[in-house]
Formats: sequence, structure tokens, C-alpha cells
Amino acid sequence: MKYLRGLAAICLVQAAGFAHSASPEPSPARYTADGRLEFPEGYREWIFVTSGLDMSYSQLPSMAGHSMFDNVFVDAASYREFQRSGTWAPGTMLVMETRGGTEKGSINRRGHYQAGAVMGVEVHVKDPQRYKGGWAFFQFENTAPATMVPTSEDCYSCHREHAIVDTTFVQFYPTLLEIATAKGTASTAQRP
Amino acid sequence: MKYLRGLAAICLVQAAGFAHSASPEPSPARYTADGRLEFPEGYREWIFVTSGLDMSYSQLPSMAGHSMFDNVFVDAASYREFQRSGTWAPGTMLVMETRGGTEKGSINRRGHYQAGAVMGVEVHVKDPQRYKGGWAFFQFENTAPATMVPTSEDCYSCHREHAIVDTTFVQFYPTLLEIATAKGTASTAQRP
Repeated sequence: MKYLRGLAAICLVQAAGFAHSASPEPSPARYTADGRLEFPEGYREWIFVTSGLDMSYSQLPSMAGHSMFDNVFVDAASYREFQRSGTWAPGTMLVMETRGGTEKGSINRRGHYQAGAVMGVEVHVKDPQRYKGGWAFFQFENTAPATMVPTSEDCYSCHREHAIVDTTFVQFYPTLLEIATAKGTASTAQRP
Repeated sequence: MKYLRGLAAICLVQAAGFAHSASPEPSPARYTADGRLEFPEGYREWIFVTSGLDMSYSQLPSMAGHSMFDNVFVDAASYREFQRSGTWAPGTMLVMETRGGTEKGSINRRGHYQAGAVMGVEVHVKDPQRYKGGWAFFQFENTAPATMVPTSEDCYSCHREHAIVDTTFVQFYPTLLEIATAKGTASTAQRP
């Protein structure tokens, strides 16, 4: 669950806004007959949102010697809608991919670069008709369909309480924060 | 010039390969009448390659208390060509954007996230008919057209000597490294 916190979001859930906007393009969210979410194939070619390194919302010490990048992507149609309105349309999929961070390698001497295989993929999907609260989290072990993370997990409460736009952590997404600020959709109480 | 090193690339310049492939889509590279490169508008919507934090190829100490992310993007047509061939077509544009990295903010306690405005934009463009050596670097101060970085600058020699695919630092780009390895286009001498 700790990776899911990287996607965390808005303090004030804009509940009244869930059905205000509709994306003209189909959502990339695909489900199995029993309600599991299909793996978001091709997400690496979606719109890049941001990256972080070893982000943690906890005071607990980090794993010494281990570093992890997170790369966040959003589907193109939902990105267009965010550019227009400053918030997310139903069908929005945010994907967070984690990869190991390495310091020494090739000619690199300091800092960190991304190396090796994907360590995990988590998805935050908006579908107010399907999910109470409007959004659901999914954590993929591999590319097999994933079951929804139970709403009792703390990723939901953390995103509800601390994220700045519609339960998403736009305060950590510089290009989107600029848009949300201009559109007036960012909760001022949660600004970094 | 220090940011340019983040784009650095292949040890063995595959000089014979420059004209082997052609992209079916037009390059996004646009020039002024006097040969300056236009700012790559919309690069944030191109294909994301990777991010790094405070990467340095130098033994010199870092700036204490200052962190910088670099985000690398490539135009979609050249990415498709790389997926097909494992190397870059004429017209390829790689863009490296740098942004400040912040540790404390909102509910983040550790690690780094990207914050604030763009600190710099550098471009590495492939055009063997225009540039001796096949590639040129440009460093944008803002969104005004940029003059070419002189070939006497060490970014050129560093990329020639150390980068793994066609003067580009694919050894730091995990998804592209996987492709280049499968296609046999990565210099084995430069693997991390």
C-alpha cells in the first residue's frame, strides 16, 4: 500500500463536481466480467505527469541503500479535460509506475537515475457511477487484471484528506498545479 | 553546459547508420531563417523517456541543499522508429527539462518531488544533413529560438565517448535500453 500514497489527493472532495464534465473520448479503463481492472497497456505512452524519488508521507526511516522513483501518467483524454476544466472527468486513469533508482553506473557519479524493471504499477481510476466516493485504487502484481483495493485501506482516507484536486495529489504535479491554480480548482488549504 | 550532460550518449558513433532509416512523420524540429532552433512547444505531451535526480558525471561536490530533476522526452514519431529499429531516425528530438526538487512540502516528509517552474530546457536533435557528426545541442534560456551549442563544448565529446546508442544516453533510459538490447543496437562496452 505504501506506493499508492504517491498518488494521494484532495482535502476537499469535490463531490458535487463528479458528474459535471464528460470526456468526449472513451476512457481507457477496461474491466473483466467480474469487475477486475485490466492492466493499462501502453500507459508509458500516455501523458507524463511527474516523477518523484523516495517520497514518503511517513516519519518512518527509509530502507537504507534502496531508492525508488515513481513515474505518474494520465490518459490523454483526461489530461485534455483537466487542461480545459482544472479537474478530472469520469473515466480518468492515473497510473503510477515505480522503478529502482541507481546512483553508480556508466559514467554517473552522483544523484540517481532509473534502472531496470518496473517494481510496481498502481492505478487510480475515477468512475462515480461504479465507485462510492468516485474513485478506486488498483495495485497490479503483474499485467494480470487487478481487484480493487478495499476502501478501508488508508490510501483512500489519505487522498481524501490531503490531496489538492478531487482526491489527486496535484500539489506534487507542477504542470497540473499551474492549471488548477489558474482554474481555481485547487484547495488552497492543501498547497505545499 | 552541465545540464546538457544529462542527455549525453554513445561511445561508438554509429556513423554508417545515420541515413539508414527515415521517419514517415515530419520531424518537430523547426528553424528560423538564420538557423536557430525554435522552442519545442508541447514537448511535455511527447513520449516520456525517463527522469533523474541530481545526476552528475563529475566528481565535483553538489550544490548543498539544491536538488534538480531532469525529465527527458522524445517526439512520438522518433519513438516509434526507435521501437522498430532500436536507433534514432533523422529528425529525432530529445528534450531534457530541468525542475527543482523539493523535500518538504504538503504531507511529504522524505524523498523529493518536482516543484515550481522549469529551470532549463535542452534539446538534442539529429539531422545528419545539417550537422557534422549527425546531432546538435541547443540550450534554451526561455522560449525564444536558440543558437546551436558550439561543437567545441564537452557535451559533444562526452556523448560521443560514453553514450550507448547513437550518441544518446540510452543506458539511463530503461524502456529504451530494453529495446536497444533486443535489437542489438546498444554498445556493449558502455552498459552500466
